[in-house]
Amino acid sequence: MSESVICGIPYKDFLIRVEEFHGYRSPGILLGGIMVENALRELGPTPYLNVVTETVVCLPDAVQLLTPCTIGNGFLQILDWGKFALTAYDRMTLNGVRVWLNYERMADYPLINSWFDRSTENRQKPVFEEIAKEILSATSNLINHRSVRLYRALKISQRKPTGLCPKCGESYPLDHGPTCTSCQGEAYYE
Amino acid sequence: MSESVICGIPYKDFLIRVEEFHGYRSPGILLGGIMVENALRELGPTPYLNVVTETVVCLPDAVQLLTPCTIGNGFLQILDWGKFALTAYDRMTLNGVRVWLNYERMADYPLINSWFDRSTENRQKPVFEEIAKEILSATSNLINHRSVRLYRALKISQRKPTGLCPKCGESYPLDHGPTCTSCQGEAYYE
Repeated sequence: MSESVICGIPYKDFLIRVEEFHGYRSPGILLGGIMVENALRELGPTPYLNVVTETVVCLPDAVQLLTPCTIGNGFLQILDWGKFALTAYDRMTLNGVRVWLNYERMADYPLINSWFDRSTENRQKPVFEEIAKEILSATSNLINHRSVRLYRALKISQRKPTGLCPKCGESYPLDHGPTCTSCQGEAYYE
Repeated sequence: MSESVICGIPYKDFLIRVEEFHGYRSPGILLGGIMVENALRELGPTPYLNVVTETVVCLPDAVQLLTPCTIGNGFLQILDWGKFALTAYDRMTLNGVRVWLNYERMADYPLINSWFDRSTENRQKPVFEEIAKEILSATSNLINHRSVRLYRALKISQRKPTGLCPKCGESYPLDHGPTCTSCQGEAYYE
């Protein structure tokens, strides 16, 4: 277990990086890290690597820790689909590999199963070291992968014309409407 | 300039961290870093810090670099509003500070102005060191801040019941519909 390596990073160093970035050791980041590793291995050398995750939870942090793709540089896209899956692809060729969990085999891993099962009422937070052991032993048994071809690159590279909102005076993309989204009544603050 | 400090990090070290995480030195991250610093200073000690950015571009990376808030741990929320603004707040008290750019004063900073103005057809990529000098000299002149109170905490802490999608067999939040979002025709891949 201590000899495991995730994306070239020794397990112990990986945990330190997880704590620094994500704040705490999380089963989702560990499982996500192994998924990222699987995807990159299957994809092979990729000069224009992009990643899309299908959930906002945990997975984006695994990607940001282990690849050059971040949400702020646009090479990571996040879909709020609630699916624990991701696709790594080359934004030039649009060839990618999607990885997701093998739900049929999950029953063989009681701690992962119970951690993942959101329907359990009395779901207890697992002891990280115990579930980590299960995750590291399961690895590719639990991860499915498939080559995919993207319809289009998901990075938004097109510049949109901006202007100042007539209500608040701040800059916004003019295609959002006559005022900015916030002044359209979406503000989250008073 | 070389003596500048951003969120307690000496400028030169900050640049190294930016390159490591974001991939390259970017005016947006530098300006964003100064905005984060302003927001945190005005907010004062905040035990339950959350941040919401109003754009997906650059700003989320400044937040993830300089605070414990990431997209994957849920303490950073990202609104795709195309507004270069962010709010730091305490998710318990809902008291926050919103920072945004002072567009009236921007004309005084020609390099920042030209970098920010998406409407310029022949917009040239600025030399980072030159625009950085302007950003560091402008600092709080260019940044507005205001205390705000959030309507509600934006972190999604509620667990949603999940189940297996009858089409693809993968786990998804049941409130998304009879099948997962992907199987509803939203898939980005073939």
